[in-house]
Amino acid sequence: MPPLDPQRTIAELKELRALTGDENGAQRVAFTPVWGAARAWLRKKLEAIGGLEVHTDAAGNLWATLRGESERALLIGGHIDSVPNGGWLDGCLNVLAGVEILRRLHAQYHGRPPVTVRLVDWADEEGARFGKSLFGSSACAGSLNMDEARGLVDQQGVRLPDALAHVGVEFQRVKESGVELRHAAAYLELHIEQGPVLLDLDLPLGAVLGTFGVERHAITFHGQAAHSGSTPMNRRRDALRAAAKMSEEIYRIAARSGHGVCTIGSCTTKPGIVTSVVEECRVTLDQRHLDAAALARMLAEAKEAGERFAQEGNVRVTWDRLWRIDPRPFHPALIARCDEAIRETCGGSHRLPSGPLHDAAEMCGAGVPTVMMFVQSLHGISHNKIEDTKEEHLRLAVMAFDRLADKTIAWLRATG
Amino acid sequence: MPPLDPQRTIAELKELRALTGDENGAQRVAFTPVWGAARAWLRKKLEAIGGLEVHTDAAGNLWATLRGESERALLIGGHIDSVPNGGWLDGCLNVLAGVEILRRLHAQYHGRPPVTVRLVDWADEEGARFGKSLFGSSACAGSLNMDEARGLVDQQGVRLPDALAHVGVEFQRVKESGVELRHAAAYLELHIEQGPVLLDLDLPLGAVLGTFGVERHAITFHGQAAHSGSTPMNRRRDALRAAAKMSEEIYRIAARSGHGVCTIGSCTTKPGIVTSVVEECRVTLDQRHLDAAALARMLAEAKEAGERFAQEGNVRVTWDRLWRIDPRPFHPALIARCDEAIRETCGGSHRLPSGPLHDAAEMCGAGVPTVMMFVQSLHGISHNKIEDTKEEHLRLAVMAFDRLADKTIAWLRATG
Repeated sequence: MPPLDPQRTIAELKELRALTGDENGAQRVAFTPVWGAARAWLRKKLEAIGGLEVHTDAAGNLWATLRGESERALLIGGHIDSVPNGGWLDGCLNVLAGVEILRRLHAQYHGRPPVTVRLVDWADEEGARFGKSLFGSSACAGSLNMDEARGLVDQQGVRLPDALAHVGVEFQRVKESGVELRHAAAYLELHIEQGPVLLDLDLPLGAVLGTFGVERHAITFHGQAAHSGSTPMNRRRDALRAAAKMSEEIYRIAARSGHGVCTIGSCTTKPGIVTSVVEECRVTLDQRHLDAAALARMLAEAKEAGERFAQEGNVRVTWDRLWRIDPRPFHPALIARCDEAIRETCGGSHRLPSGPLHDAAEMCGAGVPTVMMFVQSLHGISHNKIEDTKEEHLRLAVMAFDRLADKTIAWLRATG
Repeated sequence: MPPLDPQRTIAELKELRALTGDENGAQRVAFTPVWGAARAWLRKKLEAIGGLEVHTDAAGNLWATLRGESERALLIGGHIDSVPNGGWLDGCLNVLAGVEILRRLHAQYHGRPPVTVRLVDWADEEGARFGKSLFGSSACAGSLNMDEARGLVDQQGVRLPDALAHVGVEFQRVKESGVELRHAAAYLELHIEQGPVLLDLDLPLGAVLGTFGVERHAITFHGQAAHSGSTPMNRRRDALRAAAKMSEEIYRIAARSGHGVCTIGSCTTKPGIVTSVVEECRVTLDQRHLDAAALARMLAEAKEAGERFAQEGNVRVTWDRLWRIDPRPFHPALIARCDEAIRETCGGSHRLPSGPLHDAAEMCGAGVPTVMMFVQSLHGISHNKIEDTKEEHLRLAVMAFDRLADKTIAWLRATG
């Protein structure tokens, strides 16, 4: 058997799919029995390698440690949990590529690589059940808002602390998982792109520049209800008309920003009846950029436009921030090595930001030098059973990611 | 006592308000006990005049007939029902002005005017309870869709036929009320404008040209859901973006149409979450014009624009007709007389279409020469307890409407 066997990773992904999926897709929602079964299956794979220390930390994250000559640790992360009716790759490709790399390193270095190498399976990356993503990694990074998390309730009325207790995690102590980062010196994560950029470029792999910062707001335009038959057009204070102008404007704002994206994801109207001019129109705006200043500029431009459209339509506008997060630019030295590893594996590479958040953002935020590698997604779609990637690209991904692990180990030795 | 006493009409409107309103406004919803009390009160007023034949027809409409030398009948219509929390004038001003005119004619002609004069209080003009307006007048005109009406259910689950039975009306026989139109030769209706046109022109009264034709559609744009973070702007098939362009376009379409109006009254989005490009966006479009060809052109232009925006955004668009009604242009000779009566009463007049529908539309559709007179609305608002009109304008309205009745009687004599 060769030292690295990418085909085995594909076989294991299919094995996991058969074990934890159904005709609607993957069903490994965190803290459920199916997730527990996936974890048990993963533990067996890790134990079969031999010589790894495997344990669950205070936040329910599963760690497999291959102790090296140095305590300085290279972390490889992923998540075996999925959304309901999820895809077969999102999260678990990362984990199983990590398993294969541990196997290769264990074999190559006879159980003792130059630096410590640790695979982590983060708990509840998706947040599908409690509506809060990155649970395990944010607990570990120390950024988890305990008051907010304590109040989370699933659709059946179960509180997050109770669901955690059910799987042996004590809510009050989850941040103690931060101890795991004591010797963390680099963090690597492989993930499907979940977007169409690599597909459009016809490239299998890309080096990720960081995760976008996000500004998320509800924008409400307040006009006046009026009878749709008796109110002349020039007498209307039409909240929808003002809000609708935002829809086109955000495309201009995104274009000016360089590489930012803006999305109006929802629109609601009051009274919302066919016979009345809209009195109140609420839209949600999601803006993302890798550069903090550019993100702030996109938000300022949207606010200025909203004000202008409100004035033009003789309506008022109010803004409510729903959520925000800073951009997390990844480590330049690791981005360069990721790019190199990709080029050496398949000729061409591309650098791109990540729109979606990942556990890597938490590690980056915690000060661990971080990079991610993306593999092409077919259809540009995820969180859906039709999520897919060519097997040829999965093999290249495991090979390039393994190469990145080697380059990172060399970098840690050179800088340690 | 003078032959016509407009101040008495105002006093009676206030009396009715005290009897059937509360701190939230008028509560005379059709077929309810409060509506029954209003009807009983009205009957007493009619009976006090003496010499009128008063009866309820097969559709629950209340008729008061002052027989004249000719069987040819001048009809004066209104409706004593209101929406919940309604205004103090909508519908009952028409009825009580009619009562005052009957009093005046009865006194002047010693109980026998040259033509028959009939006041009708239509049943359930508002359609507040069952969601279908113009019930009594459409039954009388023969245009009521029996299958549709049979299936109507209120929010408590009561069926329209059962609610009718409760007030002594047999659903299967409601169209027998059509017999009331046998000698109908003209139909007059006074109403508050419910819009801001006369207020803007600083005119108390206007002659109504007819009721708008209405085209009402749901327009659905079908795009593709996509992650708001990972999907580049130029790869989006954003259903909201296409729909939003309609919002501005309908103002251009209305402007080109001359005197038409267009309204997007509601907007819904799917999946409607902050992190996804909108896959499906549904808006409702209400278009109104007094001219059938212009209305058809407005609809065609909206369809053409929707198709264009769909193509620009790489989405699909589908249309569903929700409802339509033809324009009801009123009778030219009666419009001219209405205009004259207004000028003679208060100097200036204005001709305007009616955006809202009225029972007059049903009479017009049934072939009865019809006209309406509008009196200025303060705030341009109705269906609300703040609906109001200056008392000075109410007095002018009763005087001008009475003058129109006289002119119409003269016209009927001349043409009979």
